Amino acid sequence: MNADGSDLGEFELIRRYFLQHPAARAPRDAAHCAASAAPSGVILGIGDDAAVLALPPDTELVAAVDTLVAGRHFPHGTDARSIGHRALAVNLSDLAAMGATPAWATLALTMPGADAAWLERFAAGFFHLAHANGVELVGGDTVRGPLTLSVQILGHVPRGRALRRSGARAGDLLAVTGTLGDAGAGLAFTLGDTGAGPAFPDGPAAAAPAPPFAVRELIRRFDYPEARVQFGLAARGIATAAMDLSDGLAGDLPKLAQASGLAAHVGVEHLPLSDALRAAVSLERAREWALSAGDDYELLLAVPAPRYTELEAAAARLNLRLTSIGELRAGSGVTWSLNGKDFAPLSSGFDHFGRGTTQITV
Amino acid sequence: MNADGSDLGEFELIRRYFLQHPAARAPRDAAHCAASAAPSGVILGIGDDAAVLALPPDTELVAAVDTLVAGRHFPHGTDARSIGHRALAVNLSDLAAMGATPAWATLALTMPGADAAWLERFAAGFFHLAHANGVELVGGDTVRGPLTLSVQILGHVPRGRALRRSGARAGDLLAVTGTLGDAGAGLAFTLGDTGAGPAFPDGPAAAAPAPPFAVRELIRRFDYPEARVQFGLAARGIATAAMDLSDGLAGDLPKLAQASGLAAHVGVEHLPLSDALRAAVSLERAREWALSAGDDYELLLAVPAPRYTELEAAAARLNLRLTSIGELRAGSGVTWSLNGKDFAPLSSGFDHFGRGTTQITV
Repeated sequence: MNADGSDLGEFELIRRYFLQHPAARAPRDAAHCAASAAPSGVILGIGDDAAVLALPPDTELVAAVDTLVAGRHFPHGTDARSIGHRALAVNLSDLAAMGATPAWATLALTMPGADAAWLERFAAGFFHLAHANGVELVGGDTVRGPLTLSVQILGHVPRGRALRRSGARAGDLLAVTGTLGDAGAGLAFTLGDTGAGPAFPDGPAAAAPAPPFAVRELIRRFDYPEARVQFGLAARGIATAAMDLSDGLAGDLPKLAQASGLAAHVGVEHLPLSDALRAAVSLERAREWALSAGDDYELLLAVPAPRYTELEAAAARLNLRLTSIGELRAGSGVTWSLNGKDFAPLSSGFDHFGRGTTQITV
Repeated sequence: MNADGSDLGEFELIRRYFLQHPAARAPRDAAHCAASAAPSGVILGIGDDAAVLALPPDTELVAAVDTLVAGRHFPHGTDARSIGHRALAVNLSDLAAMGATPAWATLALTMPGADAAWLERFAAGFFHLAHANGVELVGGDTVRGPLTLSVQILGHVPRGRALRRSGARAGDLLAVTGTLGDAGAGLAFTLGDTGAGPAFPDGPAAAAPAPPFAVRELIRRFDYPEARVQFGLAARGIATAAMDLSDGLAGDLPKLAQASGLAAHVGVEHLPLSDALRAAVSLERAREWALSAGDDYELLLAVPAPRYTELEAAAARLNLRLTSIGELRAGSGVTWSLNGKDFAPLSSGFDHFGRGTTQITV
């Protein structure tokens, strides 16, 4: 085996970076371990043909999968620590949207070769976030090929209590966590920096120079998305419907409205914009990003108006901003207004096989 | 949208080929569905941020993930029906090795573009096998990129009853299902046919012409691996340890021996060889493939000698061959003999980042 890891065998590679990591500690003395679960519910972790897991009593299993492809979901050359973080965060975000408690993950890692330095940073990003969310890595597969990461997240909700997209009722308010558009702006600045061109036709390259602090913050928002797991748990029982904003509000809101059999209306002037985004670009551009750019991983929720303050208080306890942006009505379709006038977003969100705005085509 | 599907949006694509398929029937009227599970345990299927699933009472969750990369696990240009079958079969095989009942799957599909004809054949291969095994597709992710498929399979075992690699005891017999080496031979013939060169230095290109019926059968074994799910269920409670042979006996057996803290010995003359393999190549070559080639997805089991006939009867009821090939002993390491003489396999099995024999490097 070479010191640079170029000759690292698959099993040695897995052992070094994943099995030995505290967050992936399976019952190692498997020959003699009893069939009882650790506090994490892991009865049998990495190292057998499959993991064996115990759900808490009176819960249902919640499962999601998300894939990241280099050059598609993050630019080629992205820091592996960000990639490791993102691969787990986008899946945690799906569980947050269900009001579920994350518990276990499996990782399918396809990479061009076994690069020890890359793996070390990838594992650091992945496991730091896993620890913070009580997630244990229980299975994986490493394969040589073009850099592609697929994480499956497994968690649980009390029986019958999962938050769905479909539970909203006419008259419910629409609310979003955090601020919107930051990740889309961060991506555009990243691509501008790398010379790969802005993601928008008249993107940051054409704008007035943005303050460095703002650019750094926006890029951080793209590189290290925060899944709103704790807020998802708090919203369960208050919100009537929820989903995460991975493809942009303009692309995602119609899905929630349709699933609930309702129409939605949003006042674009209400969209929460960060100080960084406002400092970096024009208000018009900021609103377009907040509407149409993906990768924010904030939560979109429907909540009965009388319970909005309750949801707001739950967000405040987590030091999280919550903003009411519109409402759900009888009917179908999504309408937008800006200060009382009809408004048409420039694009309708990210579609991996369509012509969404934030596609990375480097 | 073009008739050839080249302009197919992601969501339309998913809807057409996966959501509408009977095996992926989620509660579609989600706005009004009660929080009760279908017979399949699917409370909420495709179409929300995550699936919600109900395990049967007194069971544990069993989870595995396997990734397939074009040009790595199957040659470029492989029939999409075979790819769809394989993506699920290799995961079913992991559950078979645990003695688990498969129930749900998620699919992460990365593909260069939305090709309707390809997707139709892929879905046919995937869902045919899913139906046959009672598996429902409950989640997925489609992304544009180099062809890569990651399936996560979820199933269950009665509490504390999972078959592990680690349960074998000294004196247990080693047994394998079916015949070995067929898939490796099939792959070699496929690559020879495509002009990509044989996978072995003195592969079929250098051998005497093989009968067409045998070549067809061997290629079928590679293209459509059969997961031994029913036998895995039957072996639970009889076998003391099990694993599936995905990387070849010479590569996989050491893992079972090590997990059980034992030494293993195999008499190479006992390895079960198919008529097709014997007709296609020399006995020596057939044995090398049976030892070292991957992709057979047969089960390797440890069974107490007094219970071997019981396991054999279980196999016979499924019309499946079971062969005793050696035994487990106190100690460590794996030894091989051929007609009483020490024997050294030419290679030690498949390693995606090493120099295994069956790597596809086209």
